[in-house]
This record gives sequence, C-alpha cells and structure tokens, in this order.
Amino acid sequence: MNAVAEALPQLQRSSDTRQMANALRMLAVDAVQQANSGHPGMPMGMAEIAVALWGRHLKHNPADPDWPDRDRFVLSNGHGSMLLYALLHLSGYDVSIDEIKRFRQMGSKTPGHPEVGVTPGVETTTGPLGQGLTNAVGMALAETLLAREFNRPGHEIVDHRTYVFVGDGCLMEGISHEAASLAGTLRLRKLTVLYDDNGISIDGHVEGWFADDTPKRFEAYGWNVVRAVDGHDAGDVSRALQEARASDRPTLICCKTVIGHGSPTMAGTHDVHGAPLGADEVEATRRALDWPHAPFVIPSAIRALWDAREAGAAAQDAWNRRMAAYRRAYPNEAGEFERRTRGALPANWRDTARALVRDADRARQTVATRKASQLAIEALARALPELLGGSADLSGSNLTRWKDAVDMSAAPEKANYIRFGVREFGMSAVLNGIALHRGYLPFGGTFLTFSDYSRNALRMAALMKTRAVFVFTHDSIGLGEDGPTHQPIEHAASLRMIPGLDVWRPCDTVETMQAWIGAVERDRPSCLLLSRQNLPFVPRDEAQIDAIERGGYVLVDWPETCERDARRVVLIATGSEVALALEAVGRLKDEGILARVVSMPSTTVFDRQCNAWRERVLPEGVPRVAIEAGVTAFWRQYVGLKGGVIGIDRFGESAPASELFAHFGVTTDALVDEARRVAA
Amino acid sequence: MNAVAEALPQLQRSSDTRQMANALRMLAVDAVQQANSGHPGMPMGMAEIAVALWGRHLKHNPADPDWPDRDRFVLSNGHGSMLLYALLHLSGYDVSIDEIKRFRQMGSKTPGHPEVGVTPGVETTTGPLGQGLTNAVGMALAETLLAREFNRPGHEIVDHRTYVFVGDGCLMEGISHEAASLAGTLRLRKLTVLYDDNGISIDGHVEGWFADDTPKRFEAYGWNVVRAVDGHDAGDVSRALQEARASDRPTLICCKTVIGHGSPTMAGTHDVHGAPLGADEVEATRRALDWPHAPFVIPSAIRALWDAREAGAAAQDAWNRRMAAYRRAYPNEAGEFERRTRGALPANWRDTARALVRDADRARQTVATRKASQLAIEALARALPELLGGSADLSGSNLTRWKDAVDMSAAPEKANYIRFGVREFGMSAVLNGIALHRGYLPFGGTFLTFSDYSRNALRMAALMKTRAVFVFTHDSIGLGEDGPTHQPIEHAASLRMIPGLDVWRPCDTVETMQAWIGAVERDRPSCLLLSRQNLPFVPRDEAQIDAIERGGYVLVDWPETCERDARRVVLIATGSEVALALEAVGRLKDEGILARVVSMPSTTVFDRQCNAWRERVLPEGVPRVAIEAGVTAFWRQYVGLKGGVIGIDRFGESAPASELFAHFGVTTDALVDEARRVAA
Repeated sequence: MNAVAEALPQLQRSSDTRQMANALRMLAVDAVQQANSGHPGMPMGMAEIAVALWGRHLKHNPADPDWPDRDRFVLSNGHGSMLLYALLHLSGYDVSIDEIKRFRQMGSKTPGHPEVGVTPGVETTTGPLGQGLTNAVGMALAETLLAREFNRPGHEIVDHRTYVFVGDGCLMEGISHEAASLAGTLRLRKLTVLYDDNGISIDGHVEGWFADDTPKRFEAYGWNVVRAVDGHDAGDVSRALQEARASDRPTLICCKTVIGHGSPTMAGTHDVHGAPLGADEVEATRRALDWPHAPFVIPSAIRALWDAREAGAAAQDAWNRRMAAYRRAYPNEAGEFERRTRGALPANWRDTARALVRDADRARQTVATRKASQLAIEALARALPELLGGSADLSGSNLTRWKDAVDMSAAPEKANYIRFGVREFGMSAVLNGIALHRGYLPFGGTFLTFSDYSRNALRMAALMKTRAVFVFTHDSIGLGEDGPTHQPIEHAASLRMIPGLDVWRPCDTVETMQAWIGAVERDRPSCLLLSRQNLPFVPRDEAQIDAIERGGYVLVDWPETCERDARRVVLIATGSEVALALEAVGRLKDEGILARVVSMPSTTVFDRQCNAWRERVLPEGVPRVAIEAGVTAFWRQYVGLKGGVIGIDRFGESAPASELFAHFGVTTDALVDEARRVAA
Repeated sequence: MNAVAEALPQLQRSSDTRQMANALRMLAVDAVQQANSGHPGMPMGMAEIAVALWGRHLKHNPADPDWPDRDRFVLSNGHGSMLLYALLHLSGYDVSIDEIKRFRQMGSKTPGHPEVGVTPGVETTTGPLGQGLTNAVGMALAETLLAREFNRPGHEIVDHRTYVFVGDGCLMEGISHEAASLAGTLRLRKLTVLYDDNGISIDGHVEGWFADDTPKRFEAYGWNVVRAVDGHDAGDVSRALQEARASDRPTLICCKTVIGHGSPTMAGTHDVHGAPLGADEVEATRRALDWPHAPFVIPSAIRALWDAREAGAAAQDAWNRRMAAYRRAYPNEAGEFERRTRGALPANWRDTARALVRDADRARQTVATRKASQLAIEALARALPELLGGSADLSGSNLTRWKDAVDMSAAPEKANYIRFGVREFGMSAVLNGIALHRGYLPFGGTFLTFSDYSRNALRMAALMKTRAVFVFTHDSIGLGEDGPTHQPIEHAASLRMIPGLDVWRPCDTVETMQAWIGAVERDRPSCLLLSRQNLPFVPRDEAQIDAIERGGYVLVDWPETCERDARRVVLIATGSEVALALEAVGRLKDEGILARVVSMPSTTVFDRQCNAWRERVLPEGVPRVAIEAGVTAFWRQYVGLKGGVIGIDRFGESAPASELFAHFGVTTDALVDEARRVAA
C-alpha cells in the first residue's frame, strides 16, 4: 500500500466496515424510494467493494476534484449512480444531503445516471453500458503516456490509477471486448476493474444468455485476473486491490456479490435491479441491516469513518510538494504540464492558427481533403504537443499519422499515436476518456460509414463536451468501388443532428485547416468529414478566409452592379460538391441567372452564428439550391419547400467514383437544371 | 463425413488441391488487377481453406441458391469478395467469367463487397467487419429452431450447417464478442468459423494492437476450438472441419495462413491486403504458382474439379425425397414449412390483419405504445407462428415477450423467444441473419437511445431489405428520470434518414397495431418507436383507420363549411405529441383558427405515397406546425422555412417526465402559440 493509501483511515474493525457499507446501502435505498425511481440493487451489492476501494485505496481529494494526479474512478454500471453519489457525499465532496434527497429531480446534482460536469467527483457520464469501462481505458492510457512524457527520475508527478466498477451488462457489450483487448495489448497496468459478478441482469439470472468464463476471457486478453473474491468482504477485496498494484498488467477483480444484498426478500433477484424496494421492504431492509437511523440520517461516527477530506488534503499536499520540486528542476516542463492538464492552448496559439490557414492558402494545393487533413495534422503537431492521434486500423487510408508520430506500445516509451485496431466504438470511447483525463487533445480516424459503429460514443462526447476530434474519411460515393456498405449516404446529415456535435465537411486545404483549428479551439467534439478523392483548391480573399470559421460564407458572389430584377439563386454546397457549384456559376450566368455560391463546411457552426450573419449569407427571398452527395431531406431547413436539393436518397453502388457521381445525378448539369427551375 | 459430403469430389491428389486453390488465387489477382481496385491478399491466403470447405464439405446446389436445406456460407471478411465470386463461378452458380471480369464495375454481379440479392449464392452482405459472423449466428440459430420445430423422428428436413470465414478484423470488432458469447451460450453446434489467422491487418502486423489469445478467448465462450491448423494444407483444414461436425458446440478453426500467399515479394505484408499487386507482381505470382494460363482462363480439367453442380443436384434430390416423405407423413407441417421458408404470409393474413386493427379500435385502450406493441405481438403471435422475438436484456421494459413465448436455450426444445443479453448490435445483426435464413420473422427490442449501438446493423438491414422488426421503446424525454443518456433526441429523425428503413412512431393502440402489420407485410426492415408512458386512445372513423397504413393522414379536420378566408393551420404530430395537437384544436378554434391535425406515424411510408395523397393531407398554401419531442430540423421538409416546429434541440434532463415536457416546451401551449404565429 502506498503512502497515500496508508494515510487513509484503516478499517480494522469489521463493524466499521459494516456500518460504512450500510450507510451506502441505506442512502441508495432511501433516495431511490424517495425518487420513486432508480436502481437500488447494484449499490446494495457493491457496498463492501466500495468501502474497500474508497475507504482504503482511492487517492483523491474531495476539496479538489480537478487535482491532476488523483486516481480516476469510473462507475461503468452507471445505473447504480446512487452508490457514487453516496460515496461523494460521505467522502466530503460538494454533494450535500439535500442533493441526495433530490435524487433524479430537475436540476439536482444527482441525476439518474452520473454526469460529468454536473456532479463534483464524477469523472465521466455513464449509463450506456460498456462505455465507462472504455473511457477508463482512455484515462489509464492518458496517464501512462503523460507519465512517460513528463515524469523524470525522482520526479513522479504523474502516478495515479484508474478504477472501474463494471457489471454483467458492461461485460456483455461488444465494446468491453474492444476495450479489454486494447488495454491488455498496451499493458495498462494501472487500470483495475472490479467486476460485480452477481449473476443477475434485467431479464433475470444471466446463465441463460451469458455463460462466458469471464476470468478466462480476460486472461486471454493478457490481463491479471483475481478470481473468486468475496465481494461482501471488504478485506478480501482490499487484498485483491493490493495484488492489482503489484501487477504489470491491467487487473480484473472478480467479486462474487448478491444484488440487493441486505434486502430480506428481494436480494439476489432482478426485482431489486431497477425499481424502488417499496416502503415495506425498505423498512424490512432497515431492520435486517440493523440500521435504526431515519432516512438520510448518517450518524457522525459513521460520517467520520468515511470523511476523506483530511487524508485527501494530505495526499494532494504531498503531490504539491513533489510538483514544486519538479518545477524547480524542470520549469519548462512544469509549465507545459500545467497548461496541458488545464486544457489551455499555447499562449501564441491564435497567431499560429492564423498563420497556418494563410500557409494553406498560399500553398494552393489540390489534394483530397483527407490529405489536407494530414497536412493540417503535420503542422498542428508542431504547435500542439498534446496532439494524440490514431486510427481504427486505417492509418494509411485516413491519413491520420504524421511524420514524427510515435506508436504507443507496451514498452515504456513516449508516444503520440495509437494503433487502435479494428475497434471504432472502442476507439471513440477511449478518445472520450483521454479528453476527460486531460493532458492530451485526442483524435482518431475511420471511414465515415463506420461512424455508425461508434455513434453512441459520439453522442456521449457531445453530451460530455469532450474535446475530441473524429476524423471520418471516405465521406461519400466518391470512394468508389468499395460500394454501398462503405459509401456514406445519411451519415453527414445524421451526425449533424446530434446536439452539440460540430460536423465539418471542408471543400479544400484551406477549409480543412480551418476545420481542424475549429476542432482544436472548441470545448466540444468535432467530426471532420473528408474526401478520398482530390478536390481542387479554391482561391479566397482575406475576408473569405476569415469567414470560414463561421461555418458558412459566400465563396462567389453575384456582381453588385447588376439590374435589380435579375434572376438570382443561391447555391449552397459542402465538401466535394463545392467544385460543382463553382462550375455552375458561369453556366448560369450564360443563361442570365446570377448565382451566389455559399460554401457551408459546417452547418452546425453556421447555425450558431447571429441572425445578421446568417441572413447576409442566405438573403431572404432569393431561391436556394443545395448540393451534397447525401440525403436531401436535411437541406430543406436551408432551402425550404420550394428550393432545390441535389443529393442521394438511396444506397450507393460499387463502381469507379467518376461514374457514380453521374449515375446518381450529383453533377453540375443537375445543379444548373435545378437552379434554373427555382431562380426568381 | 455425411452422405452429401461424400458425394462431392474427393480430392486425393495434392496437385488437384493445388490447382483448385491457384485457380481461386489467380481469378482474384487478375480481377483485382483489371478493376485496379480490390483486395487480393485474403483470397490468396484463404484459397486452400476454401478448397477444403467448398470442395469437400459444403452442401449446396449451384442450380438452386434458395434450396432451404443448403449449408450457409458467410464471408465475414467481405473485402475478400473475389474469393467468393471465384468460388461461385467455379462451382457453377450463375456468375459468369464475364461478371468476374467486370469486378467492381457498375451493375455487375461482382460488386466490391458481397451483396445479397445481387449475386446468386451470396447469403448476406458483408464488409462492415464482424457483422457477417453475427449474421451467421442468426442463421445457425434459425436452423436450430427450425429443426426443433419441423423435424420429426426419421424426418430430418432441416439439417444444414453454417460456415463463416473471419479475419483478424472481424475478431477485433466488439460485435464478435456479442456473437460468439451468444452462440456459445446457446451451443449452436452447427456453426463453424474458420479464422484466417494471418497476423496482418491494414495497419500492419497485428501484434502491436491485437495480442489476444483468440483460441483461449473462444474457449471462454464455451466453443470447441481447433488450434494450429495449417491453413495452406487443405487436408488439415478438412480434418478440422470433420472435428467440427462431431462437436456439440460451435467450432472455431484457427488456420495459420500467409496473407497474399503466392505473391513472391508481397506475401505476408499488409501491402497485399487492399490494393492490386501491380502488373509485374501479377506476372511474378503467375510464375511462382506455375500457373501458365492467361487471365480469366481456367483449364477445363480444373473447372471439372470445382464443378459442384452434379453433386449439388444429387444432394438436393436426396433432400427432395426426404421432403416428399415428410409431406406424406406430415402434410400440414410440410405446407407450413414451405410457406415459412418462402417468406409468405398465411393465406388469410389480410383478413386477420384487418380484424386485428378493428379489435384494437374497439378495445379503446389508453396504454403506453410499448404496451400496445405487446398487445399487438400477443395477437400476431396467434396468427404468425413464424414470429421469433427477443430483447437485449430489457424484456420487461420493451414488453417484447408475450404469454406463450418460450425462451430459447441450449436444450433441444422448441422456442420462439431469445434472451439476447445486453448485446444490442449483436441482436440486430442476428435478427438480420435470421431473416436472411428464412423461416422466421424476427424482432428484438431495446431502448431507442441504444439503437445507436446497433446503427450499422439497421443500415445493413435496410441495404439487404431484411424483414426484421426493431422494437425501440422509451422513445423520448417521456421516459423521465433516467436522464439524457437514455432520452432520445435525434434518434427518430436520424433513423428516418437511413434509406429504405421504415420508421413508425405510433400514437395509440390502433396506430401501433397498424405499424406492426406494416412491418410484417413489408420486405424491408421496420423500426417501431414506442413510448414508455401512457398515451390516450384516439377515436377514428373507418376511413381514418384504413389511412394509417399510408403513414400520414388527417386525424381531425377543419369543418368543411367555414368561411373561405378563415385562418387555417395544419398541425403535424407523431406518437406522444398527437395528444397535444388534439388538445390544441379546441383552443385554436376559440381564437378563430381552424386547425387540422395530421397524425404522421411514419414519415418514411408517407413519403412513398402518391402526390395526390400527400397534397390532400398537407394542402399547399396552408401553414403548418409540426410537433415531436426530438430535433426540429427534420421537420423543415414538411413545414418549410416559415412553418413552425415544436421540438427539442438539446440533450434531455433527469426528472419526472411530466416536468420534462414543460421544461423543454413541448406542450399544447407552445403549439398553440406557434400555430397562432403562422396561421394564414
């Protein structure tokens, strides 16, 4: 046990342990009962495990939930949220008993599932099963890399562990395979998973649908597995945690538990999983646990056992002293460490960003936007050492890797690139975990179609506002022969519908650079939708270059001096279709139609602009035609019922890309026809 | 080896095996070279495995790819499509050498990835990794249940196996865990997976990102594992296949192979995975393999070795005789078996369906639509014995289980309900496999939010036109306290954007019954979005009841006799918000505004109606307001830029449902305000 753990209250007497566990149980039982909603079974079943971890091992300071070197705790079985709220409350976090009483009520700090940013001490938002575990892999990975990067001999400023609670549900989810396999391969030794092996899921006893030999499965991943731990014996769990510390592998601790332990008639059944016990059973439980205290009353002696404020302050003080020594020895590194863990950009960032966009403009390159993205990464990596990239086994296709990138492996070397393997969902949830940990700005690539595999992690990124960048290449039928399984049709539109997710589909090198910069600067996730095929460089003036960051802007305008009753049309385009719109302008002019081209690399960013900007770009009363190689319905919000949309509302085909655009009618001809039809 | 396999050509001479394998190799190499696109590495690496399976074990008849008792073959590593096309061509399927020459060209039978419905003999569309394996689990599951249901002592009319090729990519994907765990639990003994263990994925040598002990992992799932098979020794593979037949578990055969085997300079590297070899290396390969034949030329002696038509006809004849005997002994069962495997509905189905909707109308029940769905299932199950239900561990929440449902287990008993466990993606891909197999009409439930987990399987369902029903309950903030992780916001809109996927969000028992009937009748997948909370029964006349199947219809109309210049508005609503629209009518009338309520349970079905219907429901020139507890942008295609939309464009909150609707402004008040604003 390390010095910090030793400073925590030692629980010699089993009665203390019992009281501590029962405090958790009854807070959960009473809060769920009061809310008339929630999940008492898991907190009751994992109470002793929580006592062992939080009472004897977890390094944390309730007064500073942002302390960079705290241990991370993730409740992957997030439906057991009351366990975490009880732990936070009793340990001394800013979660009052009134908040516990307001469990699951509007605006409380105690929502139905744990939400990062809502409750101090909650490290990640959980509930969608398996993702908490995977976020935790990301946190452990970030810790590992940060330690390799910043620690110096005698100066261990990064040295914390990541603990996860998981249930059967998390382990049934496919993402648990991706997470565990990656963690095993990378030997993330400071990751410890405590498995609540209670044999129950919502449908009942799991043996009918979940017969895995889970310890053996995790051994197959190269994990250290501690089998057959009695989850109701805090001492047994604590010893297993001790073993985990000694391992050079990630550890799975398999704790046999009884769901709803303490409930006289419902323990061990799925009835206790997701509903209040009911007033009678609550009282019976109270008696069975010999807990005479009224709901939400915790005797001060028990509070004292739980209170982690003093030990936490001492632990953080010790670290502060280490950090001070480090700062004296390595002032630059210390400054950089503090900037990075604060999530701040370098001081000269704005100038750098501005210069990078200008450089891209000067270079006038006609390349695929996936290549433009690689050029951007190359340039950004020089300015942002926090950039941590990767791909789900498509590095050479996504072009996510840069010249100086170093692959992460189990060997203790500095690295900034992750070969995620064919694990799209796992990668995305790992990126979220890395972003939540802080210290890195993570990104990862796959084909846009396979954003489907990771879709809920993208949603969770948006909900949590993680600064992660999802690089999605091969963004349309323009990928060609791989065919409909690989050709996105509905993806751009449906990603844009996730609240708070920024989606960029740039048309050339300059827009791609600005998209990357936008992604870097925003405290939210961004998706970059990039072409496989080359796209022509588009010349812009200074004002246009500056306007890209608004998401939509005028790329080619109609002449200012034309007659007032001229026929006009606004052409809205994104990505590879901007070139088609530009081609259409001349042809429309020949027909006496004045066309404006609006490049709309990010509808989500454009939608956030002020009315004045949006109206200036899309003036009322002028008919509009949108073109994008994807579903058309999305564009009705910009062109209205009478406007035109050129797009694709069916699945793609396997054929060379050039043939496909003609086949699906995503062409300048089609755009000109539609513009002619609608032009006022 | 069974009688059928014995009738297949026995390959005694290794030179025959070699020639057969090289025919596959060179067809793949030459086709990829000609297309200048594709994946030669896998076909070259798995050629001997294919010889062993297709030459010695697979029971199939090239003349009848729909023979119900054929073995199923799934190429889960679908990028190796040329291997399958070569096998189909050489075996005698209707895939000509001209089609092979047109690999990856527009309109060919040989698209980039295998597509069911495009190429005779292709059982499922693959490419998105891991899903083919999971479809195969569905096929093996369907075979198992069909055998239990229809076979009689001495009459084994259902007795076929399911074979799958997988690569490292499939096994890295999370869904492989869900599929393998479920298959192991259910002991699907006729499922055999051949693992192309070549140690290479697109990023290179897998050991840096995929260090699993895969045999051990599959043993942990309860599989029979045949280790260390030489994948370039067809005899060794064949012996392993023989072992698989003897097992009472699903079998994983681990075949050590060299990717691109035969290519002198590129074998064993990731360069050979996904790009043509190049003209020089193609010729070097030809020499190395001692294959003197020109591209696309296969000598007749080698063709003869491959030709499976005679053996296939004999095998199917033998089955036909068994089927005839079965028909004599069990005429009703035989008729039902034939109907079911044809995918036809019962003869009296239309009358039944009509009666069910009328029954629902007469019952006038106010229940949650998830409960309405359970009532529909209960009634449908009596009429459709092919109904095969399930849930991803939410049976009691999704209400997918009915009174007479019988859970499937490893025990050899008839069953019609699958406890899928917490495996949403796996469940969905299994449903696709069951539907592709034929014999059952599968459905499965989870919460709507977790449709995200299975999203690519939903897309694949739409692409393949599988008749599967996805039951998604808890369809809005109306689920209440579980909070934003569980509350769908963008899901209804984004599911509707998948081409060919029908999405229903019914408002009461009658619409729910019709949604189910629509799902049953259509040769495409359907999603049913259902409320957790009670929704009031809505009275309808006969014409309105009939109109539900059109997806959108007038539920309450303005009076016909009103003055011509009255202010009018169309209110469009779905699901739980229909009741709000109905409430608004009276209040608007008090203000002198005549409102029509359009119930739009399925926009996807409505969009397919003729112009006349759509215009009758949404008359031009009358302003419209849409209301749905989800993202608003989707509705612009129906209400235009000047119409109104009441919805939610941010994440939900954890609180009681009634408070949430008020909090997010999805109320009758808001609707009335917006209607007043837009009314003409």
